[in-house]
Amino acid sequence: MAGETEAEPRIAVVGAGLIGRSWAIVFARAGFKVTLFDADAQALKAAKDWIAETTRALARYTLIPDPDAVCERVTLQDDLAAAVGDAVYVQECVPEELSIKRTLFAALDRLAPADAILASSTSGIVASTFTGDLAGAARCLVAHPVNPPYLVPLVEICPAPTTDPEAVARTRTLLEQAGQAPVVVRREVRGFLLNRLQGAVLNEALRLFEDGYASAEDIDRTMKYGLGLRWSFMGPFETIDLNAPGGLADYAARYGPLYETLGQEQADPRPWQHSTVQQLEAERRQHLAGDALTARQAWRDRRLMALAAHKQAQSDDSSN
Amino acid sequence: MAGETEAEPRIAVVGAGLIGRSWAIVFARAGFKVTLFDADAQALKAAKDWIAETTRALARYTLIPDPDAVCERVTLQDDLAAAVGDAVYVQECVPEELSIKRTLFAALDRLAPADAILASSTSGIVASTFTGDLAGAARCLVAHPVNPPYLVPLVEICPAPTTDPEAVARTRTLLEQAGQAPVVVRREVRGFLLNRLQGAVLNEALRLFEDGYASAEDIDRTMKYGLGLRWSFMGPFETIDLNAPGGLADYAARYGPLYETLGQEQADPRPWQHSTVQQLEAERRQHLAGDALTARQAWRDRRLMALAAHKQAQSDDSSN
Repeated sequence: MAGETEAEPRIAVVGAGLIGRSWAIVFARAGFKVTLFDADAQALKAAKDWIAETTRALARYTLIPDPDAVCERVTLQDDLAAAVGDAVYVQECVPEELSIKRTLFAALDRLAPADAILASSTSGIVASTFTGDLAGAARCLVAHPVNPPYLVPLVEICPAPTTDPEAVARTRTLLEQAGQAPVVVRREVRGFLLNRLQGAVLNEALRLFEDGYASAEDIDRTMKYGLGLRWSFMGPFETIDLNAPGGLADYAARYGPLYETLGQEQADPRPWQHSTVQQLEAERRQHLAGDALTARQAWRDRRLMALAAHKQAQSDDSSN
Repeated sequence: MAGETEAEPRIAVVGAGLIGRSWAIVFARAGFKVTLFDADAQALKAAKDWIAETTRALARYTLIPDPDAVCERVTLQDDLAAAVGDAVYVQECVPEELSIKRTLFAALDRLAPADAILASSTSGIVASTFTGDLAGAARCLVAHPVNPPYLVPLVEICPAPTTDPEAVARTRTLLEQAGQAPVVVRREVRGFLLNRLQGAVLNEALRLFEDGYASAEDIDRTMKYGLGLRWSFMGPFETIDLNAPGGLADYAARYGPLYETLGQEQADPRPWQHSTVQQLEAERRQHLAGDALTARQAWRDRRLMALAAHKQAQSDDSSN
């Protein structure tokens, strides 16, 4: 049994904050041995308790068969060299500051095995800025999760120009083995894919609200009772491919001119004005008091768990 | 029983194509008596068969308790005056041509009771262009459904400048009674809300694909395994309200600058170039052969039914 454990690929997660703890669950529930590192022993202890609680919640939604087994696969470690010394893959989860990332990746490049992948969870800093001049730059990249990654499977893999394509391919395979849904962002771009798509919606939603076309609530309803239903199991391209008899090109011939015109109208970049944000905030607070935000976040996570279980149960889902 | 029937509010649906048939199901399953009009008796017969088949499918997904009862509430009628003569609400579903809408609304305004609402299903023609000069302009508006409306509850109510606000309020109440999720677009705008939000995503998705940042499949995966999950039960504003400890204003302070920068980069309106559309079409056809489109559309509708049943079962859903 000890021998079997030694032979298993080991994942190191560096940083035991919310993202690090969540990554530990993702890898451990897929059967990987995980070493969770933090220099702060208190943070490690808190992470362990949180992982135990969260895996039990996931078990209630039938998303994990055996929460104890998941917890047992997570080892705590407050020594960085020991944490990453036998890792095949290191997932960095430290604060979003360039200097911190730069110092840490230099250390990881010295301490981790030469063939280990070094992946950053950053949502906003492209890999070239903190890995480009490392000896091991070829095995460094971004693997950006969505919060929380044990409920939202998307991971955006984004290489730097110096990243070896083989490291991208290995990361994609590993994340698929971990039950996540990786995508590859082929070149560095601000916001990667998810936040660019989210930004396009938020900026248009803000314009519609600011110009008085609809309430914030009705804009939200347009998504959750309309557009968001299909997008939760098909993307925007498959959606339009199925929305015209002849497929996507047929759709483009019918509706492309409308979207071209809308695109011209929406080429109207605006600041997120303080007064508009205050009006939005005021409308949100009418629907949800400020002291109810935490409870509502817990509701969102329960809804995400139920949705994940629902999607798993759709066994005729051949959409990959 | 006959007397009871006479007293119930009666809905007239004008046009028995795909949208008209679907509206008939929506109103009939909510308990309304529906008169479905088409000048073409063949179309009426086909609609009746389709309604019987579709309501049985809905019953299999527990979305309708008694399909026969729903079908019995739908009366076929090939005389327009008889169809709308006793209606409290008329839902127009004829082809998207201004001259057809204009002629029909003039007839409806003469034939329907003076206090009946006259609503158009149009997705692209604002109401002022075909109702503005009618005697009964005050009771005319757009009620734009999403296809298929018995699975996607959103309806965009959009008044013309001449529409009485009381007609908007009555339409919103009636559609809520019918189990739909109406929103109000306060002023006429191209694309209403849904297609403006969809257009923002499609245009950015097209730019990302055209510029080689990702495959069409990975852009779709970014939505269906990432962004689209929360949006299927929360809108974009509630999503960001829950994504920062202090709520929406806190989120705007943290991430507003990123989205402002993205907005500037995305102010880049482009034509839907033939070559790009052809590449997209080719990639889609690798995943789904052209002769499999119809089967995949049926799959989509089954997924929408299962998702609707899932959302109904989330009894702790206080999101309205």
